[in-house]
Amino acid sequence: MGISDLVARALAEDIGHGDITTQLTIPAGMNGRAVFLAKQAGVVSGLYVAEECFRQVDPTVQFEALRSEGEAFEVGDTLAVATGPAASLLSAERVALNFLQRLCGIAALTHEFVNRISDTQARIVDTRKTTPGLRVLEKAAVRAGGGSNHRFALYDGILLKDNHIAVAGGVSQAVAAARAGAPHTLKIEVEVTNLQELGEALASGADIVLLDNMSLEQLEEAVALGGGRVMLEASGGVNLDTVRDIAQTGVHLISAGALTHSASAIDISLQIAAL
Amino acid sequence: MGISDLVARALAEDIGHGDITTQLTIPAGMNGRAVFLAKQAGVVSGLYVAEECFRQVDPTVQFEALRSEGEAFEVGDTLAVATGPAASLLSAERVALNFLQRLCGIAALTHEFVNRISDTQARIVDTRKTTPGLRVLEKAAVRAGGGSNHRFALYDGILLKDNHIAVAGGVSQAVAAARAGAPHTLKIEVEVTNLQELGEALASGADIVLLDNMSLEQLEEAVALGGGRVMLEASGGVNLDTVRDIAQTGVHLISAGALTHSASAIDISLQIAAL
Amino acid sequence: MGISDLVARALAEDIGHGDITTQLTIPAGMNGRAVFLAKQAGVVSGLYVAEECFRQVDPTVQFEALRSEGEAFEVGDTLAVATGPAASLLSAERVALNFLQRLCGIAALTHEFVNRISDTQARIVDTRKTTPGLRVLEKAAVRAGGGSNHRFALYDGILLKDNHIAVAGGVSQAVAAARAGAPHTLKIEVEVTNLQELGEALASGADIVLLDNMSLEQLEEAVALGGGRVMLEASGGVNLDTVRDIAQTGVHLISAGALTHSASAIDISLQIAAL
Amino acid sequence: MGISDLVARALAEDIGHGDITTQLTIPAGMNGRAVFLAKQAGVVSGLYVAEECFRQVDPTVQFEALRSEGEAFEVGDTLAVATGPAASLLSAERVALNFLQRLCGIAALTHEFVNRISDTQARIVDTRKTTPGLRVLEKAAVRAGGGSNHRFALYDGILLKDNHIAVAGGVSQAVAAARAGAPHTLKIEVEVTNLQELGEALASGADIVLLDNMSLEQLEEAVALGGGRVMLEASGGVNLDTVRDIAQTGVHLISAGALTHSASAIDISLQIAAL
Amino acid sequence: MGISDLVARALAEDIGHGDITTQLTIPAGMNGRAVFLAKQAGVVSGLYVAEECFRQVDPTVQFEALRSEGEAFEVGDTLAVATGPAASLLSAERVALNFLQRLCGIAALTHEFVNRISDTQARIVDTRKTTPGLRVLEKAAVRAGGGSNHRFALYDGILLKDNHIAVAGGVSQAVAAARAGAPHTLKIEVEVTNLQELGEALASGADIVLLDNMSLEQLEEAVALGGGRVMLEASGGVNLDTVRDIAQTGVHLISAGALTHSASAIDISLQIAAL
Amino acid sequence: MGISDLVARALAEDIGHGDITTQLTIPAGMNGRAVFLAKQAGVVSGLYVAEECFRQVDPTVQFEALRSEGEAFEVGDTLAVATGPAASLLSAERVALNFLQRLCGIAALTHEFVNRISDTQARIVDTRKTTPGLRVLEKAAVRAGGGSNHRFALYDGILLKDNHIAVAGGVSQAVAAARAGAPHTLKIEVEVTNLQELGEALASGADIVLLDNMSLEQLEEAVALGGGRVMLEASGGVNLDTVRDIAQTGVHLISAGALTHSASAIDISLQIAAL
Repeated sequence: MGISDLVARALAEDIGHGDITTQLTIPAGMNGRAVFLAKQAGVVSGLYVAEECFRQVDPTVQFEALRSEGEAFEVGDTLAVATGPAASLLSAERVALNFLQRLCGIAALTHEFVNRISDTQARIVDTRKTTPGLRVLEKAAVRAGGGSNHRFALYDGILLKDNHIAVAGGVSQAVAAARAGAPHTLKIEVEVTNLQELGEALASGADIVLLDNMSLEQLEEAVALGGGRVMLEASGGVNLDTVRDIAQTGVHLISAGALTHSASAIDISLQIAAL
Repeated sequence: MGISDLVARALAEDIGHGDITTQLTIPAGMNGRAVFLAKQAGVVSGLYVAEECFRQVDPTVQFEALRSEGEAFEVGDTLAVATGPAASLLSAERVALNFLQRLCGIAALTHEFVNRISDTQARIVDTRKTTPGLRVLEKAAVRAGGGSNHRFALYDGILLKDNHIAVAGGVSQAVAAARAGAPHTLKIEVEVTNLQELGEALASGADIVLLDNMSLEQLEEAVALGGGRVMLEASGGVNLDTVRDIAQTGVHLISAGALTHSASAIDISLQIAAL
Repeated sequence: MGISDLVARALAEDIGHGDITTQLTIPAGMNGRAVFLAKQAGVVSGLYVAEECFRQVDPTVQFEALRSEGEAFEVGDTLAVATGPAASLLSAERVALNFLQRLCGIAALTHEFVNRISDTQARIVDTRKTTPGLRVLEKAAVRAGGGSNHRFALYDGILLKDNHIAVAGGVSQAVAAARAGAPHTLKIEVEVTNLQELGEALASGADIVLLDNMSLEQLEEAVALGGGRVMLEASGGVNLDTVRDIAQTGVHLISAGALTHSASAIDISLQIAAL
Repeated sequence: MGISDLVARALAEDIGHGDITTQLTIPAGMNGRAVFLAKQAGVVSGLYVAEECFRQVDPTVQFEALRSEGEAFEVGDTLAVATGPAASLLSAERVALNFLQRLCGIAALTHEFVNRISDTQARIVDTRKTTPGLRVLEKAAVRAGGGSNHRFALYDGILLKDNHIAVAGGVSQAVAAARAGAPHTLKIEVEVTNLQELGEALASGADIVLLDNMSLEQLEEAVALGGGRVMLEASGGVNLDTVRDIAQTGVHLISAGALTHSASAIDISLQIAAL
Repeated sequence: MGISDLVARALAEDIGHGDITTQLTIPAGMNGRAVFLAKQAGVVSGLYVAEECFRQVDPTVQFEALRSEGEAFEVGDTLAVATGPAASLLSAERVALNFLQRLCGIAALTHEFVNRISDTQARIVDTRKTTPGLRVLEKAAVRAGGGSNHRFALYDGILLKDNHIAVAGGVSQAVAAARAGAPHTLKIEVEVTNLQELGEALASGADIVLLDNMSLEQLEEAVALGGGRVMLEASGGVNLDTVRDIAQTGVHLISAGALTHSASAIDISLQIAAL
Repeated sequence: MGISDLVARALAEDIGHGDITTQLTIPAGMNGRAVFLAKQAGVVSGLYVAEECFRQVDPTVQFEALRSEGEAFEVGDTLAVATGPAASLLSAERVALNFLQRLCGIAALTHEFVNRISDTQARIVDTRKTTPGLRVLEKAAVRAGGGSNHRFALYDGILLKDNHIAVAGGVSQAVAAARAGAPHTLKIEVEVTNLQELGEALASGADIVLLDNMSLEQLEEAVALGGGRVMLEASGGVNLDTVRDIAQTGVHLISAGALTHSASAIDISLQIAAL
């Protein structure tokens, strides 16, 4: 589902058979100017979605983004300005803000994680723990915040997790099964929970190993064992307090579901004045 | 957009042309049992959505909810059990959890707000600051947490906000304009920011007054002035620390966008075992 | 479903894999001028839909509305002119007329009702007895004819009818149940069929009372009892012959399903000439 | 668009995010019985659509049609009975009736036309003047009333009308153009307005001739000239008063837009009782 | 489903959440020029679809068709040129070619059939053996190649095949049943497999007779018997080797499923250069 | 787009507002038995799609597949049997066959390719040269024929082709750019046309190298140079005559667009008998 469709559905959800309040109070010919004002510091993501909201409500609205995707902003900064029929600005306001505040929230939280480890080799990556239906936007927000994307979905990556491994009969067997039938364009990632399994993973020829819920000591040993041969990803217990220590173990990737499932919205208001 | 459609889109987003990992490692005939296990305390909302996820991936999966919508749970509680083809359980897992964790998060946060003011007359209500596309689910989660719903959207309520009032030429004029053309089944709510505007609102015959960003003292005066004649709703600066004091001013309703735009996901895991 | 989607479906229904007759007989480069000519007097509603029909078939067609929504017209009046490729005009003709004739019919019939009671205080309102799928257009046609809209649908108004009341155990109980859980932005309307029930409705604090199928005498008594305290709506047996007497009883609203379920199409023809 | 989709859209239009009144007043476990009662005589069409309405709202509702498509009914007759959760019966009621009343209205009106000419050779046929989006249902209602269907749409029939003929340079040229490119499975019908054009149509090898707005005398002459060689269809000025005279001229077909664009709804009520 | 929708689905299928390769390697501001170069001779069909592909990916791409629908081309010919952002050209390339190569293949194969019988009276017609979902495009490609279209689908033609005849009790009965209820605008075609059935078909007043799998001798006799009275269509065993002999028997139409179900794609490449 | 949706669209395309012939000739209560009979040898793919066609037209039809996906069949073999209402069997017939014949054709052609190289190490893989909209089915048919799938689309694989390389400034630069930003789960494939470029590809750390249009001698040298270090894929000029020689050079993969863009339909008929 593309952005245009996402916006169309969100507008239908919020406007439905009509914005009654605006219809009753705003004269048809009146123009207005709407300013997106940051009430909280953050990182820009999703102004392009806000723009699409106004465009769908009324193609005559002019939208000017004053900040770029991924740019940091402070309280009081103006992020964008929309000009056009006042009624259209009012009817699109809430949906545009609902998208923008959430995406800026994800970008800002990702940025915080990234900042904590900026002097290490590790990269912050997202997960599939995204809002149902909004993944393409939320993964873009992670990139805007300086993070990297893990696989997008179940169809574009192979990640053998505990359940797959248990059924296959072990790490080696699971990797072998995957290799036998996988499209040759996909790497094979396997989750391990201890160093013995890591040994199996290395021996089986996995391309990437997910180190799940390991202690810092285990992570260090894992890096010593496999860091030069495969890509190592740490997950579990990752938060702003722990991420730096994890990164310093030498793992290549650190994945955190919180980037998308628990980011708070950034407070942004739309100030509309008649022209 | 009904629940069935929401789930279909979320599954299409996550599974797309196929869950490659599962296809490569899980035998077609193998059955499994999946247990939804709470890793954090919370309040149930959305097990019916999780059930629909499994049903759409595979109608032969049996889903049993062990907790009811709105019921509180503790760490370690089992919320539901699904039984059926192991491959189907694995393919539906992430989407089911993505819905459930978010909705339980909203219900839990709402529950906290409601608990803080349980000995007052005030009710907690939500806003239109919901995730685009998921409003029907998120408003249900607010109810599960003990909150009440404000208008669903722009089409089923009249709320004259600062911009509408400015254009109409004042509170009285805005209420008059609304009353002249509104469907007779809708009440008219108007936002005011000071006591003088409240006076105008009362005089104009508004049915509900939204007291925006007022101090506790102002709220108390507002209640003294209008509490017996109209419904009073407080908004702005509402959080877990402030909500009790606000409620004690005697307002009837307290609305909080945070219920839906900033609730963290509740950690719930799906433990799958082969049968 | 927005107007654009309604028109797209109607065109798909009528044109499908192609307008064979036009393809076989109208040269690609030929331009034409199409005039909407009234063959019957009426009230304009839906020229904006007709315009959308031409626009979707061919964006190069120029459409000029000569009359405004809600304007009365006589036999022989020209309502609009469309200019562009002759083949496009021909392919869009029937669908544009099918919408326009129906909507003008509803507007004209509403106008007749409204005219009969223009010297009373009563307003004519519509019902949910609309053509499935076309409600948004038909309710707009009612407004074009001078009528007012009742609730749009089941989601934006509370109307306790006989069945709800019977189940709840009486008028008082039904109103109480509704008040306990309803969004605070919606008024509560309750249907009564005699004066005793009206008394209950008044006592229970209903906001609006629907007086169903009452005699003129009953309506007068109802107005005497409750007219100053609640809004009163008469329904049942409303037609062009009875509406004036009903209005003169002093009720505030008169609802008539016939406005939308039994209006005849107004005869309008499209006269196309090659340019 | 199939029936299932039409019903889904109509229900979404009317129920949207929820039937609030029913949710507030009808207990979840209560069952009911709903009887479709004719308040006016008519002809059955569309009980299958009403059934689909209940089925989509709640698959556990049992629906029993007591009359068949095309069967006449009198005031007081019971047409169908639905049994199931009372809340489901109430939520589906209006949409089911909106479909049924309209379709029975079309069937009844068609039946009246057909009755007037039952001792002639002529058949009553419909037109493309149907409600946008509901053509498949309305054409079925015409059949239920004893009428026949003309072409369904622009894609399954060739009908050269005045504008096509004018552009092509005359009746003969238009028919020749059509014959040159038409799929060999379609007949060619041409509209004429006088006997000279009829002569051209006969000479050009048209399969069907539409006699538009001719007087009874002209129709008789037309039948004398062409009745044995081509199919003759009369249109224009067809109503219940004129149809018999037109039929007696010997034309094969009489088409009337009024069947679908101006039929009044038949009054049918749904009486629901708790079980 | 219109062309715009077909292209949208095809692009969604191929691009999904993003053209990763292009995003990683093609700078945002770079422009390019893409030339459609024929690597094989053929007949043009579908450049309008290719244009729509580019337009949907990026409305700023300029597309110029250098050949017309139905025009023959040789190896090395340039069919069209597209200019615009290089990334957009690359992302649309494969889908545009997938449509174009298939449609040119159908047009070219049809053209070969048509050429073989150009000095006879017979016409080549297609069948319903088209690619699911692409019928409107493939039938247009047949016309581009000089062929004619048979009925588009089950809804716009009556063709009584062996199974229908068997059930009806014979050719005469089947034709009679069809004539009794068919819309008067459709001809009636009936399939026969021998001359006795042909006799029945002629006697029953069928409009068209499909001669299925007859020998050349049978076809000649069939033409002698019925050629002057009904339209005769030969089918079965039609290929480039046999078509000329079949045409010379004097049948009016020859239908071949191979036109659409077994045409090979024409090799066309897109050569993109940076500007 | 899932299989259910693909089938729904194909049925809508072919049946539209109704299968007129069947409606006119097949009695409602009659049952039949339909046998899928192979008129040509082939390999089964798509019986599950045929089953879905019958199921959607009429859920009461019983469908029994007698052969499995991927199983070879001979002339005269029965592939499946469907039993149910004769009218439903007839209405679904053509769409079911259109899917099945195409998919069996792809499986059969793939099987031929695979057979030619069964004693080598090479695998046959498909391309993105599939029918727009049917890729998921056609890629499954390739697997049924014994082939392997290349990336599904632009979103799940990185393939640097000539144009990407030219823009990036060479093979090394292109691979470096891809590696810098690619999701860590995807391998990087790069196309080369000569051995010098292959050298660059190897040096740059590409995971897979596509050897485009190389002679057998070049392919052998390529294998000697890189076969032990990267995966090598040959493409260009691949047909049933050349594939064996190409495979014997030692390449790992051979890709052929012809598998999907130029496979002929396998002749399968549906023989329906009344029960």
